[in-house]
Amino acid sequence: MQLWCTENQTETLGLTARVKETLFAGKSEFQDVAVVDSYQFGRMLVLDGVFQTSIFEEYVYHEMIAHVPLYIHPNPKKVLVIGGGDGGTVREVVRHDTVEKVEMVEIDGMVVDVCKKYLPEISSALNEPNPKLDLKIGDGIQHMADATNEYDVIIVDCSDPIGPGEGLFTPEFYRNVYKALKEDGLFVQQTESPFYHRELIKRIQKDVKAIFPITDLYLAHIPIYPGGCHCFTLGSKKYGPKDADTSRQTMEMRYHNAEVQQGCFALPNFVRELMK
Amino acid sequence: MQLWCTENQTETLGLTARVKETLFAGKSEFQDVAVVDSYQFGRMLVLDGVFQTSIFEEYVYHEMIAHVPLYIHPNPKKVLVIGGGDGGTVREVVRHDTVEKVEMVEIDGMVVDVCKKYLPEISSALNEPNPKLDLKIGDGIQHMADATNEYDVIIVDCSDPIGPGEGLFTPEFYRNVYKALKEDGLFVQQTESPFYHRELIKRIQKDVKAIFPITDLYLAHIPIYPGGCHCFTLGSKKYGPKDADTSRQTMEMRYHNAEVQQGCFALPNFVRELMK
Repeated sequence: MQLWCTENQTETLGLTARVKETLFAGKSEFQDVAVVDSYQFGRMLVLDGVFQTSIFEEYVYHEMIAHVPLYIHPNPKKVLVIGGGDGGTVREVVRHDTVEKVEMVEIDGMVVDVCKKYLPEISSALNEPNPKLDLKIGDGIQHMADATNEYDVIIVDCSDPIGPGEGLFTPEFYRNVYKALKEDGLFVQQTESPFYHRELIKRIQKDVKAIFPITDLYLAHIPIYPGGCHCFTLGSKKYGPKDADTSRQTMEMRYHNAEVQQGCFALPNFVRELMK
Repeated sequence: MQLWCTENQTETLGLTARVKETLFAGKSEFQDVAVVDSYQFGRMLVLDGVFQTSIFEEYVYHEMIAHVPLYIHPNPKKVLVIGGGDGGTVREVVRHDTVEKVEMVEIDGMVVDVCKKYLPEISSALNEPNPKLDLKIGDGIQHMADATNEYDVIIVDCSDPIGPGEGLFTPEFYRNVYKALKEDGLFVQQTESPFYHRELIKRIQKDVKAIFPITDLYLAHIPIYPGGCHCFTLGSKKYGPKDADTSRQTMEMRYHNAEVQQGCFALPNFVRELMK
């Protein structure tokens, strides 16, 4: 028998990976949670049937959602991560010498527990006591509504805008992100594929532009996501992509480097169209 | 009944697209040739079961394989395209004012005929009489062996290095490309996915480096190819990526622009590793 795990990336497109075994399959208060061991991607987190992250390529997403904004800010000390239950994003954030405190607010405790057990390479920062990290299982939307002038950088490492992630893609949420940031703060959010989610990206760009003086978008090659082309939306009060200074601290990385920090903002015309 | 067309991108990974209908299915001297009309990608050329190009996203590949090398060369007059039976590459090449002559050598006449009939948006340059274009059905490997000091730019728009494309990935072929180029000429070749074809890319980099003084690699987001991340190898006698001058001629494009011309050479670390 061959087992294949298929994600319906759209209604008429699927990515299907042959699976060695299912390591975990459960149902949390919020979603179906599974970890499969696949031949192509190794161990992979699957939420509500959607491929989230895998041992094979997780570094792309986690390096790009963490380091790009952290290098744009000249001195990020206090960082908030919303979501990111697998721990990969905070693993990268705590590597920055300037960062003194990372708060992480993940709504689904089961995701954290499962990733700590089955994806230790990704969740390493959650497994070891880390003086910089403050992990809270709770509602990121509420946390944002309660915070004022607190963070240098906010990273919204959420799942798709359906299910528990839905409220993280609204004008109200972006207004609260603005409020929660310090006067020179900035945020990024994963915002899906420019090939397949054009209306969503256009809406987010419009909503963020209405609130933040600086808005931009950057791309990364992420093979398990639809189209392999994933975008991140940036909203900033003061600093833009050109302000990035990667010379502050060099780190060993598998994807990110000084050229990628700038090159990821070199957008194809069809992506620029979404930002008008 | 639902029809799905599945490409086995690797032995353990598939991309599957729901199909409205099969417009053509035949067998040429060289390969299985099919055109399906898919919901996600529109009409799509499939050779030996491998997704080649589609109405939805063909502009990425064709703009990037044509314009990146043509802008690096300061005055490309005579261009050779090996393969490219769908016509998309020559469609882009003939748009350059500097280009006086494009020779295209495609081994499989059935691919040309089928694309002319079923993919006219892509094959448009083949359908209309074009004084710049000289289309020849024949063996690109032999053509290259016979040519000396003739071309400013050579574009190897081939299929995968199995089947008819195999001989286009050998040191002997690259030596003939060098010989066929003028003294300041350059070539590019599609060289698969950095995520899934690492050994191939390493080998090609090594082989091209042994012959050409300037070797580089650039990336594009191509959703129907494995991982959505596709790379192109550049070998050049004189001009490198930084010599590109896109101000020579501005054109309406859907993917390529001046920033992309440079940004596509901003390579992630794991890709740089393949070039060492």
